Amino acid sequence: MPNPSLLILPGDGIGPEVMAEVRKVIDWFGTHRNLTFDVTEDLVGGCAYDKHGTPLTDETMAQAQRVDAVLLGAVGGPKYDDLDFSVKPERGLLRLRKEMDLFANLRPAQCFDALADFSSLKKDVVAGLDIVIVRELTSGIYFGEPRGIIEEGNERVGINTQRYTESEIERVCRSAFELAMRRGKKLCSMEKANVMESGVLWRQIATEVGKDYPDVELSHMYADNGAMQLVRNPKQFDVIVTDNLFGDLLSDAAAMLTGSLGMLPSASLGAPMENGRPKALYEPVHGSAPDIAGQGKANPIACILSFAMALRYSFDRGDDAMALEGAVEAVLAQGLRTADLLGEDGKDPVTTSEMGDAIVAAL
Amino acid sequence: MPNPSLLILPGDGIGPEVMAEVRKVIDWFGTHRNLTFDVTEDLVGGCAYDKHGTPLTDETMAQAQRVDAVLLGAVGGPKYDDLDFSVKPERGLLRLRKEMDLFANLRPAQCFDALADFSSLKKDVVAGLDIVIVRELTSGIYFGEPRGIIEEGNERVGINTQRYTESEIERVCRSAFELAMRRGKKLCSMEKANVMESGVLWRQIATEVGKDYPDVELSHMYADNGAMQLVRNPKQFDVIVTDNLFGDLLSDAAAMLTGSLGMLPSASLGAPMENGRPKALYEPVHGSAPDIAGQGKANPIACILSFAMALRYSFDRGDDAMALEGAVEAVLAQGLRTADLLGEDGKDPVTTSEMGDAIVAAL
Ligand SMILES: CC(C)[C@H](C(=O)O)[C@@H](O)C(=O)O
Ligand SMILES: CC(C)[C@H](C(=O)O)[C@@H](O)C(=O)O
Repeated sequence: MPNPSLLILPGDGIGPEVMAEVRKVIDWFGTHRNLTFDVTEDLVGGCAYDKHGTPLTDETMAQAQRVDAVLLGAVGGPKYDDLDFSVKPERGLLRLRKEMDLFANLRPAQCFDALADFSSLKKDVVAGLDIVIVRELTSGIYFGEPRGIIEEGNERVGINTQRYTESEIERVCRSAFELAMRRGKKLCSMEKANVMESGVLWRQIATEVGKDYPDVELSHMYADNGAMQLVRNPKQFDVIVTDNLFGDLLSDAAAMLTGSLGMLPSASLGAPMENGRPKALYEPVHGSAPDIAGQGKANPIACILSFAMALRYSFDRGDDAMALEGAVEAVLAQGLRTADLLGEDGKDPVTTSEMGDAIVAAL
Repeated sequence: MPNPSLLILPGDGIGPEVMAEVRKVIDWFGTHRNLTFDVTEDLVGGCAYDKHGTPLTDETMAQAQRVDAVLLGAVGGPKYDDLDFSVKPERGLLRLRKEMDLFANLRPAQCFDALADFSSLKKDVVAGLDIVIVRELTSGIYFGEPRGIIEEGNERVGINTQRYTESEIERVCRSAFELAMRRGKKLCSMEKANVMESGVLWRQIATEVGKDYPDVELSHMYADNGAMQLVRNPKQFDVIVTDNLFGDLLSDAAAMLTGSLGMLPSASLGAPMENGRPKALYEPVHGSAPDIAGQGKANPIACILSFAMALRYSFDRGDDAMALEGAVEAVLAQGLRTADLLGEDGKDPVTTSEMGDAIVAAL
């Protein structure tokens, strides 16, 4: 059997430095676990634009389609703010999501015991929090046509279109129900069915799919109330399913609740390939954080845990994933903290690379 | 001079019971302050549908256009969940906003000292919080065409359109800058210019309008990051301006941060009328809370403070507004709490009506 293949796209900002730590982990698995990956590395985002004039070349796109999994760091930065919309760094990431058809974006919001104090929320509100937001990732207002800035009369008009087909809603809801079955068997679907027809359809389809999952308790919530309830009492949720745009805001809010933003991985999964595994892209929830890039301040854990998700969902190595997650917990329990995990209490943070080394040592 | 006129629309759920307390306050101003309003009262939302088959009759709409200000309770409830989209309770409210052209929705998120402990956030994160979200209210995806559920191939497709003209963006940004001038002179504009062209236009216009307000420090933030930052450190903001849909989610999240949801009023303002005052509708931020309706548990303060906003913005009675706000604070300082403002600590809550009486007494 050939080695499993991995495309690594470090991207911009802190992407390369957190990815360097993941490389150490990947090497460890090659040496100690007889799990060697065929790794290729390439550019995405602003750095790809700098070199090729596009945030994602066709060659990189083709390679992403060929490999078993893609691991991405982060894209974007103020340097690219004035670029034309069509070549913005983000378009590289969006092209990957769209052309690989990665419709189900799993975003766990988990509060790590060792870090519960670090949340801006009261400890009892977030301690033990463990929810997953399943965000639709390949449709909705991110991709709908018509879109653009047009001239009308004497002024410009900015247009975007939210567009959801029945089958698009169905498949992501199905993923969410499947996930709920393996977890606490509670699913909350969020939309604005009181204001948007696309939300009306969403609610109908979620309800219909729910008939195939009688063991899962399905509820519906308007997305604005969802934003409130996440702040008020996030532990009321188990799995949340929502559209691309609501998912963008709600998953970021949920991630911030945990106080562990630098710790949170994500998986974006598509339809099964020939080998039965889904097309997949893994990336940390945090962004490119250009303000701290290159200073050894970034927390590599979110990216390392994204690789753990890859082990689990793309490579059927659940045990290895757990070993890696265990190593992360061990290191935190030892008290190691990157700068983002420290309050004002004057402890010395470890660098990005020291954190990576410690996790490898704990393995 | 004729009396100033007021249209009262209690609406559904707890709307009527909180509005009954506002009526006591209005009466007090008539008796003690020589400020008598010509008050008419009518139906909106589910109750209007029950009686007339529409959530807002043309007659009520015409009356809303005639009066100096509209005061609304809340609309909606599960009883109306299966109604056709076009007659849902919410459409009554949306019609008022649209036809009165109330483009600037001011939503203060203020943390009352006496209630800081009640937030799910740590006290130091929210104590003293005082920000205002200016939400665009008459355009965007709430109203854009085309919209609906269509058949395409063998399936249904849900469609909504985000559409913003230059002048729509400009006028709401101008309102936000004006407000920032009267406050802390900081304005943060939120959109998704990295993903949506309507956000690109929004950012450009906000920047252009900013040239007329050199004293205001303008910043831009992606809305997903905005959701995070509101949770992480809301006090970094003064005034936030954003579109209709983002504003819906972000203002609800912001309101919940304060722990004072039952306390928060809002004002929706349009263009100036002949008398120089803006068309205006005032309503509490909270919804119709059907689960507690009719039990005397609702907190009337948000609706009473909405009337205080009316005194200030529609009737030039800033002193009276302050007197009313002072009465609310006095009552809270005395320890009076409706059920929503109590933790598990076993104190006895006062009823909706007792709270209203106490505020009138404090006046
Ligand atoms: C970088 C950006 C295009 C992206 C998004 O809006 O989806 C990011 O915010 C995310 O949530 O992954
Ligand atoms: C009731 C509903 C139509 C409304 C909205 O979505 O605008 C409400 O959530 C609000 O924020 O005022």
